[in-house]
Amino acid sequence: MTTTVVVDGDEVRRLMAEVSVFGATPAGGLHRLTASRADGEARAWLRAYLTENGFRVLVDAVGNMFGILDLAGPDAPLVLAGSHLDSQPFGGRFDGAYGVVAAAVAVRAAGDAAKDGGRHTCNLGVVNWTNEEGARFAPSLLGSNVFAGKLDAAVGLAARDAAGVTLGEALAEIGFAGTDAAPGNVTHYLEVHIEQGPNLEKAGKRIGVVEGNWGTVKFEAEFVGKAAHTGPTPMAERRDALLPAAELITFVRRLSDETGGALLSSIGRLDVSPNSTNVVPERVRVFVELRDADGERLAAARFRLEEKIVALAQSGIKCELRCVVDRPAGSFNAMLADVIDAAAADCGYPSMRLRTVAGHDAVALSSVLPSAMLFVPSVAGISHNEAEFTRDDDLVAGAEVLAGSLARLAGLQ
Amino acid sequence: MTTTVVVDGDEVRRLMAEVSVFGATPAGGLHRLTASRADGEARAWLRAYLTENGFRVLVDAVGNMFGILDLAGPDAPLVLAGSHLDSQPFGGRFDGAYGVVAAAVAVRAAGDAAKDGGRHTCNLGVVNWTNEEGARFAPSLLGSNVFAGKLDAAVGLAARDAAGVTLGEALAEIGFAGTDAAPGNVTHYLEVHIEQGPNLEKAGKRIGVVEGNWGTVKFEAEFVGKAAHTGPTPMAERRDALLPAAELITFVRRLSDETGGALLSSIGRLDVSPNSTNVVPERVRVFVELRDADGERLAAARFRLEEKIVALAQSGIKCELRCVVDRPAGSFNAMLADVIDAAAADCGYPSMRLRTVAGHDAVALSSVLPSAMLFVPSVAGISHNEAEFTRDDDLVAGAEVLAGSLARLAGLQ
Repeated sequence: MTTTVVVDGDEVRRLMAEVSVFGATPAGGLHRLTASRADGEARAWLRAYLTENGFRVLVDAVGNMFGILDLAGPDAPLVLAGSHLDSQPFGGRFDGAYGVVAAAVAVRAAGDAAKDGGRHTCNLGVVNWTNEEGARFAPSLLGSNVFAGKLDAAVGLAARDAAGVTLGEALAEIGFAGTDAAPGNVTHYLEVHIEQGPNLEKAGKRIGVVEGNWGTVKFEAEFVGKAAHTGPTPMAERRDALLPAAELITFVRRLSDETGGALLSSIGRLDVSPNSTNVVPERVRVFVELRDADGERLAAARFRLEEKIVALAQSGIKCELRCVVDRPAGSFNAMLADVIDAAAADCGYPSMRLRTVAGHDAVALSSVLPSAMLFVPSVAGISHNEAEFTRDDDLVAGAEVLAGSLARLAGLQ
Repeated sequence: MTTTVVVDGDEVRRLMAEVSVFGATPAGGLHRLTASRADGEARAWLRAYLTENGFRVLVDAVGNMFGILDLAGPDAPLVLAGSHLDSQPFGGRFDGAYGVVAAAVAVRAAGDAAKDGGRHTCNLGVVNWTNEEGARFAPSLLGSNVFAGKLDAAVGLAARDAAGVTLGEALAEIGFAGTDAAPGNVTHYLEVHIEQGPNLEKAGKRIGVVEGNWGTVKFEAEFVGKAAHTGPTPMAERRDALLPAAELITFVRRLSDETGGALLSSIGRLDVSPNSTNVVPERVRVFVELRDADGERLAAARFRLEEKIVALAQSGIKCELRCVVDRPAGSFNAMLADVIDAAAADCGYPSMRLRTVAGHDAVALSSVLPSAMLFVPSVAGISHNEAEFTRDDDLVAGAEVLAGSLARLAGLQ
């Protein structure tokens, strides 16, 4: 039996325009940190849209929002699609928000398809995961990791932002500290996302079927010296924590350069204390990331980083390295990847297989549920930048392929 | 004619204990940023003390506080002594506050001395300069530079802290946006301060007579790259502003090392934007200081720093260097230094001549008024640190020598 699934492209464009208002920046980007006022507005907007369109809306203890269409009865299994509404500071408006919008439109389309004669074998739902970005609260993928049982909800709610506010307090402030249980009958998870890299555009493909994820290790390196006046304190008596931090920054880049750029390395954040022009830095925290598709190369880089910290400690400054994320390379569900492939072919969109370098909620879920992702192109691969952009046609195409995939999973095609 | 000047040592100790409460930290230090609530409390305390003890209190437009004893009539010339009540973030409790306390006690002592028969040839006053530290608002020495006519009051009041609050707003908030004109008849300025370095302690001297100041140049270096996702963005396409910043940190230290530490160099503050673990740093601001007693060596280091910035810009990242303070080495008033020497000798305290590496309000004033400073020892030379400490006996000694100096200037000795 084949049922036609009709995605309303205008609806995708309209919803993207509407959600982009909450936390919009003058430069056309988005500043919508987790549980900020702007995030609260975007969440309220999503809840209103879902309610108006017949979804049953649940908000769990860490603020994850679920909108469910009970198409196959209240106890039927549930297939979820979604992403996240939070953004990086002054980030782009497609990262995450697009996946939520596309899921809402695709679930509606797959739901409506049944009215034409098909019968759903499962319920379909939309999800907005809390704090995917990890920009305001650590760790990233917080909501999806709680859902997956890999992070305790209480630990997540106790995470503090730079001003000392906990996630729990911030969610209560915006009215999204939920009391609903998260749905327990989810059988599959699908996520559409912008690629955030240049590969689809370079290959001229509209759909990327994500087979798995690169390995990622993240560290906090801490250097502790001694605060002193930058004037009268003799140089020999200074214990400047910024000096080994600077050496580490250069070293971490070199780890990548030595692999010809195959290993990705970065230091995106550096906190100096007291960070006053007249005070020798006492404490510096550096946040290091290493990513590689090749697990052995990643392990080798990690080993050299650990050696380097030991060497830096010889300077008389206390140096510590703490691993905060250790996400091995992994694979998404193969059956689901085939489903996405087939849906893309049905729509006539050229697709290719690839692996995600970035972490996504689907990566967190894939250890406990069959999960999969599809990508649409990012213009020039730009992301985590206000200039992030994906063309309307690609946005609609992603929603269509997602809808087709959901319809297949619901037994309609 | 000789008049005995009696300084109340208990009063010095008592006032130090009282003022140290405002902004006290658990570790025994002080966190009293300019125009913060704690600063407002310390200012209110000072005003109450001065008023109770017969001083006429004025607060000017930038919040400088003056307490004047009209000993020689309302139109008589005025000799000021003072320092500042603001602190570094988690700094020490002696830096600045001691100079204000010592001035208040010394002015009272020199004022009371007259009652025993002497007649003052001038009025005496205490001053608390606004924002000496420059930790919350730039530039440092703000209040004294406005008083000296080297900085426009409106420019000073428009200075913004990291949260975007102006100095004018912050002063209004704590009730110290004054409307009084600063006194226009000041003839001399004296300041007592802790040394913040190890020289007095090493030499076994109680009093340092400061002959002048080292040269200091301060810069803001700005690096502008491009924000990008630290995951999928290929290394070759990244424009990471933190990399040249790290190279600059290492280079600035090397400038000092190459002089055997004679040139002092430091980077105390570094601001990364957006400073999110998953975003390649787009903008980094680095605050560089160079200090040297030798003007030629300082100029040579400055030239090499400027060359280095040009070289770093070859990387495709925009690099700019802006000089924000250019304070040449200078001398304090020689007559006043002799007065302090004589007062120290009268008290029986061993003294030595030295030069200040750090900037002080007296440096700002010395270009427009005969000015001078005296130092008392800092234990282990520690400063801009919560462990900053000066012994009670040294605190009292500094106040005694200051009082003796004021008495001399007022024609009593």
